[in-house]
Amino acid sequence: MQELINNEAFHSYAVCSALLAIKMLFTGNYTTIQRMRNKGFVNEEDARSFGGTAEPAEHPAVAHALRIQRNDLENIPLFFAIGLIFVLNGASAHAAWWYSWTFTFSRLAHWIAYLNHLQPWRAICYFVGYLCILGMAVQIVF
Amino acid sequence: MQELINNEAFHSYAVCSALLAIKMLFTGNYTTIQRMRNKGFVNEEDARSFGGTAEPAEHPAVAHALRIQRNDLENIPLFFAIGLIFVLNGASAHAAWWYSWTFTFSRLAHWIAYLNHLQPWRAICYFVGYLCILGMAVQIVF
Amino acid sequence: MQELINNEAFHSYAVCSALLAIKMLFTGNYTTIQRMRNKGFVNEEDARSFGGTAEPAEHPAVAHALRIQRNDLENIPLFFAIGLIFVLNGASAHAAWWYSWTFTFSRLAHWIAYLNHLQPWRAICYFVGYLCILGMAVQIVF
Repeated sequence: MQELINNEAFHSYAVCSALLAIKMLFTGNYTTIQRMRNKGFVNEEDARSFGGTAEPAEHPAVAHALRIQRNDLENIPLFFAIGLIFVLNGASAHAAWWYSWTFTFSRLAHWIAYLNHLQPWRAICYFVGYLCILGMAVQIVF
Repeated sequence: MQELINNEAFHSYAVCSALLAIKMLFTGNYTTIQRMRNKGFVNEEDARSFGGTAEPAEHPAVAHALRIQRNDLENIPLFFAIGLIFVLNGASAHAAWWYSWTFTFSRLAHWIAYLNHLQPWRAICYFVGYLCILGMAVQIVF
Repeated sequence: MQELINNEAFHSYAVCSALLAIKMLFTGNYTTIQRMRNKGFVNEEDARSFGGTAEPAEHPAVAHALRIQRNDLENIPLFFAIGLIFVLNGASAHAAWWYSWTFTFSRLAHWIAYLNHLQPWRAICYFVGYLCILGMAVQIVF
């Protein structure tokens, strides 16, 4: 394990994963903020506790926030898994650094683009992150 | 690898992750039970196979069950990833034990609170789990 | 780490995880294709950029594609986490091979069944994958 702690490839992966996890927690907070601000409750118990009425469908601002979270869920856990396998498989420090930071910046930029309704920037950021996962996965298979 | 098998921090993480995975499988079963009991189908093929008609929107009880699953998906995979990195980074047995079991109990309590529509207990349980992830992630970054 | 690279159990897990990650990326592409083909936009900025109008609810074909992704999200990240813990806990090459490949084929078959609206095949494939996760998780706990 001491070997892993001193491994530079693992270090890049670990720091980027922690940053992405914190980003995902904050993205969840944003959904809560939208729900509270718009009184956009779908659970009866939430409406009772926090004031307002429960609606059958999500408020548009909450639905938008949930789509940001969903996009993260479809991509970031793939990095957690594939990035770690890539590193444990003996990736070079250089390759791990580039994949980890490119993916992390692409997801942070994707977040900013989605929050600000910016297309085609959001699609481009998504695609950069997609290529990082695909690149590592293909290298693992072969 | 023998080192890891004998590592107490890894042991806490491994057992808690397995319990959380089993809990997530059961949470998925609960959705299926609600779908079957309420004949709440959205896929035509499901309505044909299991009897009933497909509706464009989810039945309220199914939507509630899906929200429980979604909340798990937004939190538990973060523990899987960040908990492992925390342990592989050389966490003490003590720190890993506390983070792992606190997180696991908070998610089990969150499940019970959500199933029984209990607020603000659900929010409190969510927040305890949130702090576990945040604490580990911040320690990894610094 | 050299030990892990030479470990056959890890090898099965690594290759299957990479294949499942690629499959999840493609499943996301399918959603995008359905969205573009049906002009099924829910974000105003998407409708503006790619032509069409934003609707409050998802187009049925897009909703179907999103349900395929959701089912993956509820299952495949569990394999990523539990499969790795199972291997790091000293699983035999034989057990890891069977669990990994059975899970991978069950999820590929589930995908084909879902795309083609085939029941009860979809439910059977789901259940096979479910048993793989449950089997590994129970072995980790005990």
